[in-house]
Amino acid sequence: MKKYTSVHDVADLNQLVAEAQHLKENPFKYKNLGENKTLGLIFLNPSLRTRLSTQKAGQNLGMNVIVMNLDKEGWALETQEGAIMNGTTVEHIKEAAAVMGEYCDIIGIRSFPKLQNREEDYNEELLQQFIKYSQKPIVSLESATRHPLQSLADLLTIKENAAAGKRPKVVLSWAPHIKPIPQCVANSFAEWVGQADVELVITHPEGYELAPEFTKNATVTTNQQEALQDADFVYVKNWSSYTEYGKVLTDGEGWMLTNEKLQATNNAKVMHCLPVRRNVELSDEILDGPNSLVLEQANNRTYAAQAVLKRMLEAL
Amino acid sequence: MKKYTSVHDVADLNQLVAEAQHLKENPFKYKNLGENKTLGLIFLNPSLRTRLSTQKAGQNLGMNVIVMNLDKEGWALETQEGAIMNGTTVEHIKEAAAVMGEYCDIIGIRSFPKLQNREEDYNEELLQQFIKYSQKPIVSLESATRHPLQSLADLLTIKENAAAGKRPKVVLSWAPHIKPIPQCVANSFAEWVGQADVELVITHPEGYELAPEFTKNATVTTNQQEALQDADFVYVKNWSSYTEYGKVLTDGEGWMLTNEKLQATNNAKVMHCLPVRRNVELSDEILDGPNSLVLEQANNRTYAAQAVLKRMLEAL
Amino acid sequence: MKKYTSVHDVADLNQLVAEAQHLKENPFKYKNLGENKTLGLIFLNPSLRTRLSTQKAGQNLGMNVIVMNLDKEGWALETQEGAIMNGTTVEHIKEAAAVMGEYCDIIGIRSFPKLQNREEDYNEELLQQFIKYSQKPIVSLESATRHPLQSLADLLTIKENAAAGKRPKVVLSWAPHIKPIPQCVANSFAEWVGQADVELVITHPEGYELAPEFTKNATVTTNQQEALQDADFVYVKNWSSYTEYGKVLTDGEGWMLTNEKLQATNNAKVMHCLPVRRNVELSDEILDGPNSLVLEQANNRTYAAQAVLKRMLEAL
Repeated sequence: MKKYTSVHDVADLNQLVAEAQHLKENPFKYKNLGENKTLGLIFLNPSLRTRLSTQKAGQNLGMNVIVMNLDKEGWALETQEGAIMNGTTVEHIKEAAAVMGEYCDIIGIRSFPKLQNREEDYNEELLQQFIKYSQKPIVSLESATRHPLQSLADLLTIKENAAAGKRPKVVLSWAPHIKPIPQCVANSFAEWVGQADVELVITHPEGYELAPEFTKNATVTTNQQEALQDADFVYVKNWSSYTEYGKVLTDGEGWMLTNEKLQATNNAKVMHCLPVRRNVELSDEILDGPNSLVLEQANNRTYAAQAVLKRMLEAL
Repeated sequence: MKKYTSVHDVADLNQLVAEAQHLKENPFKYKNLGENKTLGLIFLNPSLRTRLSTQKAGQNLGMNVIVMNLDKEGWALETQEGAIMNGTTVEHIKEAAAVMGEYCDIIGIRSFPKLQNREEDYNEELLQQFIKYSQKPIVSLESATRHPLQSLADLLTIKENAAAGKRPKVVLSWAPHIKPIPQCVANSFAEWVGQADVELVITHPEGYELAPEFTKNATVTTNQQEALQDADFVYVKNWSSYTEYGKVLTDGEGWMLTNEKLQATNNAKVMHCLPVRRNVELSDEILDGPNSLVLEQANNRTYAAQAVLKRMLEAL
Repeated sequence: MKKYTSVHDVADLNQLVAEAQHLKENPFKYKNLGENKTLGLIFLNPSLRTRLSTQKAGQNLGMNVIVMNLDKEGWALETQEGAIMNGTTVEHIKEAAAVMGEYCDIIGIRSFPKLQNREEDYNEELLQQFIKYSQKPIVSLESATRHPLQSLADLLTIKENAAAGKRPKVVLSWAPHIKPIPQCVANSFAEWVGQADVELVITHPEGYELAPEFTKNATVTTNQQEALQDADFVYVKNWSSYTEYGKVLTDGEGWMLTNEKLQATNNAKVMHCLPVRRNVELSDEILDGPNSLVLEQANNRTYAAQAVLKRMLEAL
């Protein structure tokens, strides 16, 4: 595997999930694989779960892990081709990526969209330039439009918790938030789960339609109650508008998932990628109740990352 | 050992000190003990000695160490039960602690008191919630009211430097500072040394009485000169008022330890947990002189942490 | 080797370069050498290449590496002897250095000049105090006046790319920048290359003369065109004025290296320590063209650091 940025980089989705599950049971089995290999993790935005789980995944495989918080360490990158760099950017991504490529065997990078210009964000310029200039295998640690390590962990979590012999109904349910949030987790979840053997329903208020390329295999409705009917899994997530790009169109009153709403489901398990704003996105009663899978999802992040890193190490 | 937050978590004080001393002589003897174990160190406040010494202690035991500076990385935690998180906190401690617990085998956490509300600080809510929600062994890297790794290192330092066959006189002597400082180092020192086979005297200006639960085994006096008489060790430390909570009541003129004052002692060794404000808390002549133990104390921090981590690893 | 702060700490320049080259070919050959040894890297200024390459060098030698970003972690150091520390500094360098010395076997430190007071900067007070008080081997990760790991990597790069049997002509060519930049890279390059078997020419606008102690073995001219004639290597770098200390005296129009200017050279290889401001210091066409060695230089930083650390480990 040379890059891991979306579901399209994965030829065999089920095998990759199975590999993550195998690593969860045998986390240290491949500890020699990463010996003398360096994993560089670059963050242009803060991270808790992603940093810790990917760092741990690399260590489980015996890698040396170097973390670089470019945002906090004041290293503003230039991304424009041909820029005359007489302003605030101190280094062009051409050099920064290529230099990281000299030091690292595999590179993970996190960046967020600015939510100002849709085309710019959806071009994934930063990620694409890193791939181009680093010349090393690149793992997306969340990009402007996708969060593929989260999605792999989510699929693993669904697989582990699905009832045997039944095609589960999975609902991606929009939730309120106090500020504009990227679409990447929702995009990515829809893209991944849409390729798995599940029934996918997406529900959100008017105006929150995701980009059509992500929702091809989903039923989309603005009727949350209908969507939740007989659901086996409810994935709760806020995102800002794609059509009126980056905007918050409603305060979302009534969209927060509660135990009452859960009654319409098939005793559904509830998922969220975290961090979650309690009693805004999701109620205390659900997060503290028996149906929540959020910690299992977070734990599975380690093995999702480990499966991807293992494949990259094998292909070095 | 499941938690290490105060002297009350230690059943056998003398054995733990002896264990730290043994590790100082054999730092790499137990390097296999921590293999494939992850130590997560979480800082909600800056740290130099604690971070380095605990990181080194974990590495000496073969652990993988992951450091998270939550304060600098902009991860504001919510601690209030039932909070509607529509403000500035991005994650509830319930999730943050539980997720860290998924990734780490042992967790160290540092937080400071706000010095605004005594009851709140002395309830140690953040530390208690971390213990409750992480479900993993927790080491306090300094909390609102105590600094138990410092105290263990201090006891080791006293043991190493005490004259044979004599019960030493140890004086905790308040010192001036320019701003309000927590009581935790003083509390903790009094609590630990009060359980050791020493004579403990605490001296401070009027109004700086520590909370009574910490000073049960100490003689307390506002007469510094009297306190210093025949002392074998003087532990110098500033703290703000406990009774007029968090206040600085005096500029402390005359309370800084000098060589002249040291003449009343039994050529006492001088201790301080560092960082120290030279010529405010403690004079150059003492810090640069032969009686200072401050570097030895700092060095002993590694072996104090290592003794605690070793016990936790053995109990996993 | 007990300290590595300038070329004067190196008895056998050619052998050290050869050692770096040997390590580049055999990076993991001495992995047992650093076992159970701790490398502490202290940054008082941000760093990308230096941090990553030195961290990697230490790991290649089997060391534990601990990074401390003192600037970002809010740990302001006092350096003045006898200071009454009632202001913003929280710890004296005497304690900070000595404590780091307790925890680390080798210490790397980066600090920049303030460019306010020449004598103060050129006294290298911070670096000298760290050497004095830490009592451990110290590697300069760039100081107020020199950048010796960069220079060693630069010499290795020249050696690898020089035509056999010919004494190469190396030109250090001043370049424009938008703000005052230290002289350290230029000083250090002149000092190192001046001791190698090359012809060294330095060219810069009037008023940018480096301190004479660094340029003893160089020809200096303000005529860039003349300097570039038949050059085999051009090292591009901005620096602020030494004589009118820290000042930017000109916008440097016409001094940026271009392919047109390169025609006067012997198809010269172009070097820069990075980060580089594209189209201000150096043109896109050169950085993206076949003559650029900038990535090779960055890569060689690892082996320069590794050669120095190896010698220090051998001398412990």
